[in-house]
Amino acid sequence: MGDSAQIAVMGVSGYAGAELARLLLHHPQLKGKAPLFLGRAESTREPLAALHPQLMDNNGTGMGPEGLQVEPFSWDLLAERGVSLLLLATPHEQSRAWAPQALERGIRVVDLSGAWRLREASNRAVYKFEDDGSPVAAAAQAKSVYGMPELYRDEIRDAALVANPGCYATSVILPLKPLVEAGWVDLSRGIVSDSKSGVSGAGKAPTAKTHFMSAADNLSAYGVFGHRHTGELLEQLDLEAEQVIFTPHLLPIPRGIMSTIYVWFKEPKKADEVEALYRSFFAQSPLVRIFAAGQLPQIQYSVRTSYCDIGFHLDRGGRRCVIVSCLDNLLKGAAGQAVQNVNLMCGWKEEEGLL
Amino acid sequence: MGDSAQIAVMGVSGYAGAELARLLLHHPQLKGKAPLFLGRAESTREPLAALHPQLMDNNGTGMGPEGLQVEPFSWDLLAERGVSLLLLATPHEQSRAWAPQALERGIRVVDLSGAWRLREASNRAVYKFEDDGSPVAAAAQAKSVYGMPELYRDEIRDAALVANPGCYATSVILPLKPLVEAGWVDLSRGIVSDSKSGVSGAGKAPTAKTHFMSAADNLSAYGVFGHRHTGELLEQLDLEAEQVIFTPHLLPIPRGIMSTIYVWFKEPKKADEVEALYRSFFAQSPLVRIFAAGQLPQIQYSVRTSYCDIGFHLDRGGRRCVIVSCLDNLLKGAAGQAVQNVNLMCGWKEEEGLL
Amino acid sequence: MGDSAQIAVMGVSGYAGAELARLLLHHPQLKGKAPLFLGRAESTREPLAALHPQLMDNNGTGMGPEGLQVEPFSWDLLAERGVSLLLLATPHEQSRAWAPQALERGIRVVDLSGAWRLREASNRAVYKFEDDGSPVAAAAQAKSVYGMPELYRDEIRDAALVANPGCYATSVILPLKPLVEAGWVDLSRGIVSDSKSGVSGAGKAPTAKTHFMSAADNLSAYGVFGHRHTGELLEQLDLEAEQVIFTPHLLPIPRGIMSTIYVWFKEPKKADEVEALYRSFFAQSPLVRIFAAGQLPQIQYSVRTSYCDIGFHLDRGGRRCVIVSCLDNLLKGAAGQAVQNVNLMCGWKEEEGLL
Amino acid sequence: MGDSAQIAVMGVSGYAGAELARLLLHHPQLKGKAPLFLGRAESTREPLAALHPQLMDNNGTGMGPEGLQVEPFSWDLLAERGVSLLLLATPHEQSRAWAPQALERGIRVVDLSGAWRLREASNRAVYKFEDDGSPVAAAAQAKSVYGMPELYRDEIRDAALVANPGCYATSVILPLKPLVEAGWVDLSRGIVSDSKSGVSGAGKAPTAKTHFMSAADNLSAYGVFGHRHTGELLEQLDLEAEQVIFTPHLLPIPRGIMSTIYVWFKEPKKADEVEALYRSFFAQSPLVRIFAAGQLPQIQYSVRTSYCDIGFHLDRGGRRCVIVSCLDNLLKGAAGQAVQNVNLMCGWKEEEGLL
Repeated sequence: MGDSAQIAVMGVSGYAGAELARLLLHHPQLKGKAPLFLGRAESTREPLAALHPQLMDNNGTGMGPEGLQVEPFSWDLLAERGVSLLLLATPHEQSRAWAPQALERGIRVVDLSGAWRLREASNRAVYKFEDDGSPVAAAAQAKSVYGMPELYRDEIRDAALVANPGCYATSVILPLKPLVEAGWVDLSRGIVSDSKSGVSGAGKAPTAKTHFMSAADNLSAYGVFGHRHTGELLEQLDLEAEQVIFTPHLLPIPRGIMSTIYVWFKEPKKADEVEALYRSFFAQSPLVRIFAAGQLPQIQYSVRTSYCDIGFHLDRGGRRCVIVSCLDNLLKGAAGQAVQNVNLMCGWKEEEGLL
Repeated sequence: MGDSAQIAVMGVSGYAGAELARLLLHHPQLKGKAPLFLGRAESTREPLAALHPQLMDNNGTGMGPEGLQVEPFSWDLLAERGVSLLLLATPHEQSRAWAPQALERGIRVVDLSGAWRLREASNRAVYKFEDDGSPVAAAAQAKSVYGMPELYRDEIRDAALVANPGCYATSVILPLKPLVEAGWVDLSRGIVSDSKSGVSGAGKAPTAKTHFMSAADNLSAYGVFGHRHTGELLEQLDLEAEQVIFTPHLLPIPRGIMSTIYVWFKEPKKADEVEALYRSFFAQSPLVRIFAAGQLPQIQYSVRTSYCDIGFHLDRGGRRCVIVSCLDNLLKGAAGQAVQNVNLMCGWKEEEGLL
Repeated sequence: MGDSAQIAVMGVSGYAGAELARLLLHHPQLKGKAPLFLGRAESTREPLAALHPQLMDNNGTGMGPEGLQVEPFSWDLLAERGVSLLLLATPHEQSRAWAPQALERGIRVVDLSGAWRLREASNRAVYKFEDDGSPVAAAAQAKSVYGMPELYRDEIRDAALVANPGCYATSVILPLKPLVEAGWVDLSRGIVSDSKSGVSGAGKAPTAKTHFMSAADNLSAYGVFGHRHTGELLEQLDLEAEQVIFTPHLLPIPRGIMSTIYVWFKEPKKADEVEALYRSFFAQSPLVRIFAAGQLPQIQYSVRTSYCDIGFHLDRGGRRCVIVSCLDNLLKGAAGQAVQNVNLMCGWKEEEGLL
Repeated sequence: MGDSAQIAVMGVSGYAGAELARLLLHHPQLKGKAPLFLGRAESTREPLAALHPQLMDNNGTGMGPEGLQVEPFSWDLLAERGVSLLLLATPHEQSRAWAPQALERGIRVVDLSGAWRLREASNRAVYKFEDDGSPVAAAAQAKSVYGMPELYRDEIRDAALVANPGCYATSVILPLKPLVEAGWVDLSRGIVSDSKSGVSGAGKAPTAKTHFMSAADNLSAYGVFGHRHTGELLEQLDLEAEQVIFTPHLLPIPRGIMSTIYVWFKEPKKADEVEALYRSFFAQSPLVRIFAAGQLPQIQYSVRTSYCDIGFHLDRGGRRCVIVSCLDNLLKGAAGQAVQNVNLMCGWKEEEGLL
């Protein structure tokens, strides 16, 4: 599919959308073949650079001589342009509506919302999807692959619908998966993930919470025992709700997530065993960086990259382990991981355009 | 009037309102006599601490055993409580409506908005006051005193209506007044004030501009050749519009203003002459701090104080002078200066409760 | 002792020292009786305002007509001025040396360093005190009272040597003490405290870590399984080392600490039981604010106050509890708590000069 | 020269050095031909990723399977590797010593320090070069081209020694050059450039000024009437010292410069004339973006790009003009402009690897 891929992006006005546009416009496999940028059905044509001035070129009109335009959405336009792959950076209600329609037209989909990530209806309940239970939604759900290449690389290559993971979820699942899968973690003691995210994770809408005066020089916890990303942790790590506590916090920085994760091992381990397990598990994963035992990533190291960084500290007794993971919530937590999925779906190198 | 002063504050929900509440609740002359806090006419009673959690006491209910309440506004309530002095931290349209009504009832007013600051109709035009020209408005305007104690100390003591100056205007007028009044400044060459303010100056409403993602890690100029505070500069410094350029910028910090001001002197001066002029002019002004020649204030020094700090650098030729002034836009630029005016109006020490 | 108290502060150059100076200069019981500020033995006289420009008055020379001076330290000077209470905001090595000498001269001491906080030699080992084991040190240690008024109010009143608690330790001990003391916590499952502090906690020395470029737009964990404040947690909460994991993080803000604390209860509890336990435990503690069940403090609420704020979220099962505590590391975490101790030692109201 | 270019970078440990490394490692013309990274003469071999963790790949060892190393400097090593172009990101004293030695060996040089930027000895005086006046220094100086491609594109292509401009200087010279060269500016009234830079401009050394506590939530002016970049303004704009005031300020952000520039025109102009002049002057300059009249750039738009953004506001009278320029001090202000020069020197497209 690679050569002939025509990609469209819907919902380019948000922060993840801007990163998607930037990544795709500079993607080596898409030289001279810019993606089609789409606004909502009712929108009018407007220059991409008007939405995101940092994407302007020196003609002041966006990329290219005349400037890239965001076009009003219509299925006819997609057909006319021969779109074969649609990225949805839309609210989950819209993604629920449009993904099945795209599939019906033979267009593959990468959805960045929470619309298709969760297998279990009980975990989806938090999103209150009106269509849950409808045959159309069930059919799309059945086709959906959880878009974390480190876990589902092969399934993604051929998937019709890829559900790009949540930003927090990525920062918790990647560092825990090797340990849980190896059976090392004493689940009866519970796992704690104390997670912190920059303000771009709260979206572009101006609210009391995202006002500079509330967010700057501050830190706040929220969504305790009830954040939407919890279901992804349970499904992907095969945990019971009682076995994990996930607490998000709002950091006074633009971008970046850190999860500080606390586990107890069933049997004492040595630090080099833990490091070896991580290195082995991610040996084929170009977008995960493992730190040497006792060295911890910081948010700065991964911001504006598409890496997930993982480090850990093991207690002298070998039973208590503190793991720190960092990533950029707009890249490995959103647009970067989406392009990683696009790369796999198009038969390109997984990390292409992401280093 | 001092002993019997009962003060009311209207519009306590914003940032300046919170500072007013804090200052008045700890004011030595108001011990045991808390101000009356008022919401808009249609509002319901609510605890002050619900609006501003940092004002909570350890009962979790606001100041005092039962917690201070914000009461719905009515003129009857003001009469019942014997209010003699009303502080308006309200939008200028509301201040235009309420100040004359208060005066009519014999209540003195300190207004923190731009409603009554400007003598000239041409300068007021930028506010588009609907009532401009009405006899009621004209009568109130005629009584209004510009509430900058360093310039109008005596007039303020007896004023019925005090128009608290703009934050930017304070940072420009105070450092320029001594030089302009002394006739030192070559006005034909023009004065430049390059001014920068923290985000609290943009108000509490969440907007694209005050979103953390827009304000943090950024700097932007705005209101070039058209900011509302310009009229105050012209009137208080007796300048023509052509003689001053004032450019505000939005700084990525919560509070604080710096104005970097450029003047050319008619005749060469020595640095100690300039310093002496400043020290002499402000000798009786406890809330202005003059820095030694060649030493400049920084925003941090004055934030969370009610001081205006002034320093300068004189070129070797003695003709070109760069002046730097700093203040906290919510204190000397708003609530602190308002309390300074209250102190004068009540016959208390000018700086009481402000150091 | 109150009326005749002459207070001296040693080590006023750091961030906690600046806050100590500010609090004591405005303390209602010390009007007209400024503390004696002391530099190191070899230092020369210099104005307090040269160290901390924000403490300048409008004479530009510090507080008072001639400006407060920092005097070179000597025991003779302390005797001459009749100092009866010495606050040490000095590195712990200096506090180890000077506290016993002060006690010998009949001068009471509040020490803000880690020098005298720990009863057990094994917990003190992390500080590598050269004099540990000496009779003089042992005698001082025996007299030392842990300066947390909420736990040791009566002992502090009469203490000769008060060891002011660590900032992180205060944020962990206060919220845990009621629960642990009531026997509710299942210690076999372990307690996790994920703690975050602003950069002032890292001290005034310029280092790679405190460089703006490293600290801003970042978050980093440090001291995992080995932070100096851990011993205070163990002693004050009577825990084994295996029973608690404490992980500090460096936040990109100037001041403030948040600890997010995870406990499992032995038996299910109801949220109002937890809230009632907290309210009862701190009923006589004016500097602790308890939030209603399900409402959480944010760092902003307590910064620039001397409060410790405590809130919690209880899981539906009633067994898992997430507690959030916030305080200002320079106030309740240092200078504010020191003045609280001074108040008790002098027979004044515990919260005097701190609200 | 292009194909055979072997590039070496000396002084990769600072902020500009890290950006140079990042740009060159991803440069399309240097695929498979990594630059040689050099430490000081006495240094030992160390991984590039140890200096800049964000440059790590997923092997944790730097770029490439074994990780890129920073090699100890020696002329023999440069000869052995066939280095034809040397980038110096070194302090100016070192650049003064090494550039002539490189030229002597036939190696071309791009120097990012202030060592070779100034033609006039009087302007160089601020740097206190010990060798000023020596024949070797004079010979190198005579060969030096000021590395601003928008002004000296042709000279740079063939230059042996390119002096990369100062970051502030770039932000002032680019927006002023078209106006001054056209003879529009009334120099007798003086030009004001009020400039603001993020903290990376102050270098990597931890100092009181770069401490997070001093830089965050603050703004300070410095170097008034005496900043080192002033000489570049005078020479490149052909101004007398009396004709321009340049005042730098330290912004509480990591990167980015804004210069707000005030000029008076001799004759009234229209906004579209000004815009047309700018567009014409920079028509062949891919790294300058001109904003429409009345629209101003913000620092965010250009941070992490190699663009210089220029916008302006013209007063109604057409005589007073406020110009705002923004750029990233580490890119267009340092490493980006250096690579732009490298591109010209190697015969590649000026903007290659920079968009």
